[in-house]
Amino acid sequence: MSSKPLDYENLNKNVKECQYAVRGELYLRASELQKEGKKIIFTNVGNPHALGQKPLTFPRQVIALCQAPFLLDDPNVGLVFPADAIARAKHLLSMTSGGLGAYSDSRGIPGVRKEVAEFIERRDGYPSDPELIFLTDGASKGVMQILNAIIRGEGDGVLVPVPQYPLYSATISLLGGTLVPYYLEETANWGLDVNNLRQSVAQARYKGITVRAMVIINPGNPTGQCLSEANLKDVIKFCYQENLVLLGDEVYQQNIYQDERPFISARKVLMDMGPPINKELQLVSFHTVSKGYWGECGQRGGYFEMTNIPPKSVEEIYKVASIALSPNVPGQIFMGLMVNPPKPGDISYERYVRESKAVLESLRKRAHIMTDGFNSCRNVVCNFTEGAMYSFPQIRLPPKAIEAAKKAGKVPDVFYCLKLLEATGISTVPGSGFGQKEGVFHLRTTILPAEEDMPAIMASFKKFNDEFMEQYEDHKGYSRM
Amino acid sequence: MSSKPLDYENLNKNVKECQYAVRGELYLRASELQKEGKKIIFTNVGNPHALGQKPLTFPRQVIALCQAPFLLDDPNVGLVFPADAIARAKHLLSMTSGGLGAYSDSRGIPGVRKEVAEFIERRDGYPSDPELIFLTDGASKGVMQILNAIIRGEGDGVLVPVPQYPLYSATISLLGGTLVPYYLEETANWGLDVNNLRQSVAQARYKGITVRAMVIINPGNPTGQCLSEANLKDVIKFCYQENLVLLGDEVYQQNIYQDERPFISARKVLMDMGPPINKELQLVSFHTVSKGYWGECGQRGGYFEMTNIPPKSVEEIYKVASIALSPNVPGQIFMGLMVNPPKPGDISYERYVRESKAVLESLRKRAHIMTDGFNSCRNVVCNFTEGAMYSFPQIRLPPKAIEAAKKAGKVPDVFYCLKLLEATGISTVPGSGFGQKEGVFHLRTTILPAEEDMPAIMASFKKFNDEFMEQYEDHKGYSRM
Repeated sequence: MSSKPLDYENLNKNVKECQYAVRGELYLRASELQKEGKKIIFTNVGNPHALGQKPLTFPRQVIALCQAPFLLDDPNVGLVFPADAIARAKHLLSMTSGGLGAYSDSRGIPGVRKEVAEFIERRDGYPSDPELIFLTDGASKGVMQILNAIIRGEGDGVLVPVPQYPLYSATISLLGGTLVPYYLEETANWGLDVNNLRQSVAQARYKGITVRAMVIINPGNPTGQCLSEANLKDVIKFCYQENLVLLGDEVYQQNIYQDERPFISARKVLMDMGPPINKELQLVSFHTVSKGYWGECGQRGGYFEMTNIPPKSVEEIYKVASIALSPNVPGQIFMGLMVNPPKPGDISYERYVRESKAVLESLRKRAHIMTDGFNSCRNVVCNFTEGAMYSFPQIRLPPKAIEAAKKAGKVPDVFYCLKLLEATGISTVPGSGFGQKEGVFHLRTTILPAEEDMPAIMASFKKFNDEFMEQYEDHKGYSRM
Repeated sequence: MSSKPLDYENLNKNVKECQYAVRGELYLRASELQKEGKKIIFTNVGNPHALGQKPLTFPRQVIALCQAPFLLDDPNVGLVFPADAIARAKHLLSMTSGGLGAYSDSRGIPGVRKEVAEFIERRDGYPSDPELIFLTDGASKGVMQILNAIIRGEGDGVLVPVPQYPLYSATISLLGGTLVPYYLEETANWGLDVNNLRQSVAQARYKGITVRAMVIINPGNPTGQCLSEANLKDVIKFCYQENLVLLGDEVYQQNIYQDERPFISARKVLMDMGPPINKELQLVSFHTVSKGYWGECGQRGGYFEMTNIPPKSVEEIYKVASIALSPNVPGQIFMGLMVNPPKPGDISYERYVRESKAVLESLRKRAHIMTDGFNSCRNVVCNFTEGAMYSFPQIRLPPKAIEAAKKAGKVPDVFYCLKLLEATGISTVPGSGFGQKEGVFHLRTTILPAEEDMPAIMASFKKFNDEFMEQYEDHKGYSRM
């Protein structure tokens, strides 16, 4: 029997080659163990509600009413919904053409895009054009749309931080492009050094790669650093000099756990720099309802904003978006609510503020508990999570552990993380899934387990790590970079 | 100034080359006219709620409760929601891991996939495996995922009916593959002739194309025909002989407007054929919550079911799905509700049946009004809409109209549809967007305008068409195939 078109050997090779570790070997093993009845703590993916975070009440009230518009005329509706949620649902439904069950324009509901533009203007102090804002099914889909427009073949390169969120490596691979890595400096709190960038571009060009775009993730995933204004300026200048599109992944902009470096958008820095660069540099910025204190991952709402992209290109991106008709409309409504939350004086204002503050303050505490927990292990070093939702400790593995991993046919950090999973139920992602320097090992975990569970989880980690070291350490030393 | 990466001339050429007429020139012009204040009847896309179809009550009650789980404990909830909707919301939420705000598994919620499998088994009489069912953001995204796994480059061909729904042409183009057309026979009620298929494959192979898959749309879009069991058998045998994956677009399976040819799934026909073919032929079938009497387009819920696809390939498709984390969870809940609607004895059963029957019966009436309306024009011929949501009349254009179109730089059917839009506000899609034989012209319109508006719309069409013919006919004859 000859082999068939959907047999493994006949699949598109880009499909086979792409890797997405966040739901890779570790996740699959964790899912198996869960099926067998083991208690698993899924910290592999930034999925707050899965770990017990409660949704904010006001947006859920509004979306429930939008889904059940017949309630708006029900005399009893006021018994279960506050008046401002009812008013907001009416307002949002009036922006749709047929409610949540109708496809919207493929760029998203015009009224919501306008509210996004107003949010950006309030945030940055510069006007934003709704025609250059497209709503998406989460930020990931937006990143994929833009990379698809950029990448023409394997000769096209995209600068990506290492360590990086593997959405980028996977998508570049799927689209048949080339990832051009630039290394973040762990000892400099995962800082970005423009000299490294220059070197990466020079090396890629030497290999015949046309470098066309640069990705920054700010705050960093998996690394948690917040970029300073000076750093962002350097990056922007660099992209301008090198004729690169800057892709600003800013999905964690609400997740900040220190006061020294507040979030500042790439767009604001660019606008502050004035002409000619503010009229020239091509920038696409991404945001989502999945992160922040919302954590509404399952709703798949996001947007991207284009700066200095010519109208003809915007049209092409619009055309491609239209093939799948429209992003999901409930997700668009969430985005509308996120950029325009209750205001002082609104009935739901106090509750909204109380709920969102509670989430953020708890995340800040958890960031500290986790960093401190990791740093209390003598073979682990971990930068503080300044922002985002992750801890990315470096684990110094003894040579005997590396040898044992080799024997088991595993990358050393995969070996370590699998042992951790089996021993404790903590499902992490090995550093190799994000990229790391040769011979250095990490893991990524979210800071999302409930605050009250956190001490026990860190104790369980420490106990595992101690036993692991006991087993593999030859009491002479351990590998480090 | 050198050109920049996101300037038009530097975009990925597949992005530039793909075409999606359903939201193409006609739609864009209609949107402009609407902005200028003109009343537009959007019949370009099968978007029932946008044209006034009301959502079914029960699923909207359930999803509202799932979005607002705090209501489940509210003592007043019974005043606005029926008990079976409350029970169902609890059941569905218990299947999620963290409610609608948490990412699900990238294949979709396991419990919902199990209910889809049970629905397929009830429908076809053969068991279905939930592990081979993936939930998607609408059927379009599923089609794109599968074509992405199949198409390796421009040497790979996919057999697509002409006329076709342009999702196929656009996606194949975007993925850099080759569309291999097979013509449906308008004079045989848009029937599918296996001899045509053979000829198409032979021609493509002669050009060096490896034909790897075949698409059927049943019921047909834009053509509305329902495939007979015999016809499906022929297609399945043909795919088996030629070693093609069969892609069964069955999103209109609930939309049937005659009793002679009920919907029968490709999978049932395949299973009925017995060994060896039922164990060999690779088949992927697509379904959605956007069509049927649900029409929940904006929710973006869908699934695909894989038959005879080897586990290693399923894993690869799973891996790629995981890059975007998960399909939107509310859309998955809708799919769970669609495949498991209220049962006799449930509080909401009668209302559900009444509402869904009303939608279907009205669609059936509208299919007749529309076909009859078109056929009452002497230069228009139109097959009856046996299924789906579209009417696809052939418009015989006089030579002077074709000349005028040429002068205006337009394809003749685009010229006609633009004039129709400007005169009446009816926004259709020219036949050239779906493919048609040389020198023959069509348009596609949905049968979705409200039943009470239908006579006026058809009268308005007829008046426009008469005046158009008056203007362009030389009173000697008109072009036809």
